[in-house]
Amino acid sequence: MDPRIREHARILVDHSAGIEAGDDVVIDADPVADDLVVALHEELADAGANPIVVRERFGKRFRRAYLRNHDGDFDVPDHEMALWEAMDCYVAIRGDQNVVEESDVDGDVQTAYERARQPLLEERLGKTWVLTQYPAAANAQLAEMSTEAYENFVWDAVNKDWDAVREHQQQMVEILDPADEVRIRSGDRTDVRMSVAGNPTLNDYGENNMPGGEVFTAPVVDSVEGEVYFDKPVYQRGHEITGAHLTFEEGEAVDWSAEKNEDVLDAILTTDDGARRLGELGIGMNRDIDRFTYNMLFDEKMGDTVHMAVGRAYGATVGEENERNDSAVHVDMIVDMSEDSVIEVDGEVVQRNGTFVFEEGYGE
Amino acid sequence: MDPRIREHARILVDHSAGIEAGDDVVIDADPVADDLVVALHEELADAGANPIVVRERFGKRFRRAYLRNHDGDFDVPDHEMALWEAMDCYVAIRGDQNVVEESDVDGDVQTAYERARQPLLEERLGKTWVLTQYPAAANAQLAEMSTEAYENFVWDAVNKDWDAVREHQQQMVEILDPADEVRIRSGDRTDVRMSVAGNPTLNDYGENNMPGGEVFTAPVVDSVEGEVYFDKPVYQRGHEITGAHLTFEEGEAVDWSAEKNEDVLDAILTTDDGARRLGELGIGMNRDIDRFTYNMLFDEKMGDTVHMAVGRAYGATVGEENERNDSAVHVDMIVDMSEDSVIEVDGEVVQRNGTFVFEEGYGE
Repeated sequence: MDPRIREHARILVDHSAGIEAGDDVVIDADPVADDLVVALHEELADAGANPIVVRERFGKRFRRAYLRNHDGDFDVPDHEMALWEAMDCYVAIRGDQNVVEESDVDGDVQTAYERARQPLLEERLGKTWVLTQYPAAANAQLAEMSTEAYENFVWDAVNKDWDAVREHQQQMVEILDPADEVRIRSGDRTDVRMSVAGNPTLNDYGENNMPGGEVFTAPVVDSVEGEVYFDKPVYQRGHEITGAHLTFEEGEAVDWSAEKNEDVLDAILTTDDGARRLGELGIGMNRDIDRFTYNMLFDEKMGDTVHMAVGRAYGATVGEENERNDSAVHVDMIVDMSEDSVIEVDGEVVQRNGTFVFEEGYGE
Repeated sequence: MDPRIREHARILVDHSAGIEAGDDVVIDADPVADDLVVALHEELADAGANPIVVRERFGKRFRRAYLRNHDGDFDVPDHEMALWEAMDCYVAIRGDQNVVEESDVDGDVQTAYERARQPLLEERLGKTWVLTQYPAAANAQLAEMSTEAYENFVWDAVNKDWDAVREHQQQMVEILDPADEVRIRSGDRTDVRMSVAGNPTLNDYGENNMPGGEVFTAPVVDSVEGEVYFDKPVYQRGHEITGAHLTFEEGEAVDWSAEKNEDVLDAILTTDDGARRLGELGIGMNRDIDRFTYNMLFDEKMGDTVHMAVGRAYGATVGEENERNDSAVHVDMIVDMSEDSVIEVDGEVVQRNGTFVFEEGYGE
């Protein structure tokens, strides 16, 4: 086994999830990631924790077969809920045999399935959880990379000093956390303002996401005004949405278009009322992620980018006084900030063309 | 997908488990059996049932990694127990990538693990359950067959008219169920008597085991007297025990030997007191299983054989007045009855050289 897999497992158990003796852990993975699941079993045995392996989120061939043969009237299964309720920690490992395995499932059936299962997702996200990536060949293909180059990319992004990452990112947290207004400008099609007043800014240094590498908060509902052009493709339900452009008024997307797969964007934004409001503003700060790989777990952490998600806001990013945006969806979309771009916080420029005020090279 | 896989799935869902709308189902399988798991999802969607896939019993690489790194002090995990408690039905699919994957796990650790997890097994077996086989290449290798020949063997044994099987076997149930003493003689090394008085005889026509094909009951504890030579190898914990010979007095094995891997036989029989008593007497009646494949799910159903299991008795085979043999183990061992052999029930010969009194050719 590649020694970087064991290092990855060690970081997941010790750093991300902080697993202790007696913890009941669920690992969710496709078998393409078996080496990492084996390494996790070594670490979990060492920690005295109790693992069970499921194929739920990543059982894509199974779900495709199920959804194509189902009448569309879905339950919340008791046995699955009992499992999530009783567990202490959920480790989800992305890694596919075919990333578009579910591309011929009816979109309405998929939406009905996801809606019905919302309580299961909520229960799972209420526990300690971590989402990571195994560098499978199909994911390398999606990233337009050889498998070996993609392995290097993934393990370079994962196997690092997360304490140093935390310290670096904390500088941006300290700017954004007390702030009121954020304005993001990029090129001639992105100029959007929003309030983040009262909403905490979180430092993602690889706890829920491995790799981590962003700071993020939630916009105040109804505060978002302006337009955003998302430079990077959005990969959803086996389809690539490119050139998405959204116009916001009083927090709501009132107009939108896309250069490719606009119908998929339509389906997302019309899921429910919350799907047309922003649930997240994130700032990518992981410079080891130096290329776009059609995988939001990495893409949203890229240096020189910001991302906004339509849909559900994370509870921890919403202050007690503020409303939390609710939705069945949470879809991140990315703006490239490397050229002709600024982030302003309360009228002060804090990033220009990707470089932060607290970094070397700012203003050069 | 081979159409025989979909037929297999249909039989499991409709005949074996009798799954209904709303049933919460756990499927436990190695990914080598993914095609059958996909076909099960099609059938379960059609039935309106709710599946989740786990890799527990057949997560052999994971368990090996876990057990080799664990200190040996095991819990009953709450989350796993919650899953078994809340489910309605358990579908276990044998099928390996390497049948000896756990052969380098310490036997004492494995025994401690199995003992600690006994409550989980009991909970699972208290639900509707079915155990079946996927014809994986590693299992074909163990059976000393090509993969294609083994596929034919498995699907011929599984995809058949189980109502006809039930009727044929019922003739033997009606002989054994009201009986008192059973005596089994074969060659010059097997001559054993036991009482089955008061213990029900069950007809296995493919409910808990697919394929089925045996009738079975439990010997009365303390009634077993005599000696048995098990002609067929016993495959346990990655090791093949051959030529096992056991001598019973007042129900207990008091002397035993084996031609190969006697230490593995020792370990089984010294697990606990119940491990030295018989928990099952079974009579194989499935003539479509015409060869030994080192797989008890098939071997014990072979025509012209009987099998006896040391260890735990199935609750349903023990009458209310009788004691149920309890143990952490249940290990089946097979006697070839095709030559120089008779089964006597209450002094009457009911099978000679493999042919039953109710079959054509008896006495010829």
